[in-house]
Amino acid sequence: MKFDYILQLFSPKDKKFFPLFEKASANLLDVSKILIKALKTKDIGERDAYIKEIEQLEHKGDQITHDIFHELSSSFITPFDREDIHNLAAVVDDILDFIHGSAKRIQLYNLKQPSKAMVDLAELILQGNEQLHHGIMALKDLKNIEKVKEICVKINSIENLADDVFDTAVAKLFDEEKDAIELIRVKEILQNLETATDKCEDAANVLESIIVKYS
Amino acid sequence: MKFDYILQLFSPKDKKFFPLFEKASANLLDVSKILIKALKTKDIGERDAYIKEIEQLEHKGDQITHDIFHELSSSFITPFDREDIHNLAAVVDDILDFIHGSAKRIQLYNLKQPSKAMVDLAELILQGNEQLHHGIMALKDLKNIEKVKEICVKINSIENLADDVFDTAVAKLFDEEKDAIELIRVKEILQNLETATDKCEDAANVLESIIVKYS
Amino acid sequence: MKFDYILQLFSPKDKKFFPLFEKASANLLDVSKILIKALKTKDIGERDAYIKEIEQLEHKGDQITHDIFHELSSSFITPFDREDIHNLAAVVDDILDFIHGSAKRIQLYNLKQPSKAMVDLAELILQGNEQLHHGIMALKDLKNIEKVKEICVKINSIENLADDVFDTAVAKLFDEEKDAIELIRVKEILQNLETATDKCEDAANVLESIIVKYS
Repeated sequence: MKFDYILQLFSPKDKKFFPLFEKASANLLDVSKILIKALKTKDIGERDAYIKEIEQLEHKGDQITHDIFHELSSSFITPFDREDIHNLAAVVDDILDFIHGSAKRIQLYNLKQPSKAMVDLAELILQGNEQLHHGIMALKDLKNIEKVKEICVKINSIENLADDVFDTAVAKLFDEEKDAIELIRVKEILQNLETATDKCEDAANVLESIIVKYS
Repeated sequence: MKFDYILQLFSPKDKKFFPLFEKASANLLDVSKILIKALKTKDIGERDAYIKEIEQLEHKGDQITHDIFHELSSSFITPFDREDIHNLAAVVDDILDFIHGSAKRIQLYNLKQPSKAMVDLAELILQGNEQLHHGIMALKDLKNIEKVKEICVKINSIENLADDVFDTAVAKLFDEEKDAIELIRVKEILQNLETATDKCEDAANVLESIIVKYS
Repeated sequence: MKFDYILQLFSPKDKKFFPLFEKASANLLDVSKILIKALKTKDIGERDAYIKEIEQLEHKGDQITHDIFHELSSSFITPFDREDIHNLAAVVDDILDFIHGSAKRIQLYNLKQPSKAMVDLAELILQGNEQLHHGIMALKDLKNIEKVKEICVKINSIENLADDVFDTAVAKLFDEEKDAIELIRVKEILQNLETATDKCEDAANVLESIIVKYS
């Protein structure tokens, strides 16, 4: 019975939730790649253009989240636990918000040049979101439970790496930076990037709580 | 059947939840008006008196939230989804907390004079809370579903305006303010005010998730 | 029927949830005691050793939270409301995170010497967590409902005291500290400590929402 249940969920008949989640995690991949470009370029005009793109993808992601919540509220029957659907959509939206928040602060705070640690964190965000996208795609097939578990372990390792990058960068900042306003700029952007990886770990926890019901 | 359900919910027979939500959103209106006064006055004694009033209304709001949660825990039957009631109460409490947090920081941080952007944000908070209050009152009658939808659209526009005010003010701050401690003061108060409008948008999302079930 | 239900919940037969919550709140006690030691010592080597211990206990706590969520996802029948179990575990984890975050910032921010207000807050955190531990243990027996209520009142008082300590310390900081980077250090550590007591109050609210169902 449980088997039927999950088959029904991810069979091509589920035209509602799965395609929306697939769109949401693909959008996260797009935005993560642009974030790296925005942090790496030394051309301010180019950076501003990337940040504008991130803003547009954030609006797109908001719309997808909205659509998932709308489907959830208007569906009396849902493929899996309403709470899991809600939590997964909310946490994917959180990741996007912190990526967008990082990018936006570069502009608002008038940061001269993103640091190496920021690029490193953005690359870890991309890696985490790649795993998350694979994890969401893997939910399609009951045979993938072990694969999803492995993905969750990988996301946890990525978050640990991000913690290390963040800790080292913040300690160095408080050690070396004498300009308080510059310290605020860098610290808050690092914080937003690091929180994006935390949220990715939260997403892995939701995936785990979904698969544990079928294992 | 759905029709009966909503009639039962908001009929004068519902002596539990609706009057509490009405009190909660009316309290938000009161506190928003006092916040504007606190930000506009140039008399420090007067400002302190307003902030004290805000603190008292925050306690009053806490009590209302507590009463809603208490009713929710002790009621086996609720007028609409338990989760919606919980989320609406929690988010109204969040709005209040961020208004209170903004006012309190003016005192704690020893801010000399609130800026024009702070007053603008407080006025947008009041506008958002007026719409929210109308939205909650409108839930009384099934005929109002379209009206509630319009209100949610208005709250979203107000939040967008608040974003613009906030972004412009923060960019100017990092451009012009050379005193790092003053920058911290202003930045954090702006941030708290802006988050209050974000929470108002979250409240609109809960209203939407309620009405979508009856439309 | 309700009576049987709660007896079943906290009888020695519940080998799943109760022992995990007991472990989680006992872990909070341990970590709170070490936090006080870390803040009181003037020996940097000793402080670093305490902070390392806090980090280890934070990992231990994460594992306990993970076990509770795992049990919750894999159990079709739960002793009490799934949401209450989830919320209690999440909020205990939050308390731990903010204690850990406070300790970690001492190192990362290269704080010279914790202030008296920090020690006072840590002592209030310990008091709050002692009450929380008693509250969780008291859930074992239906006769303890009044006792749990009293504990929740005590936790609220402790949080109010923490608010006063925090407000006084932050106001003094903005009044007296001229070094902006030092102000950031102290302000953020105070904020993390104070938030730990807020989360303890949130935990009391979950306890209340559990017992109200049986009173």
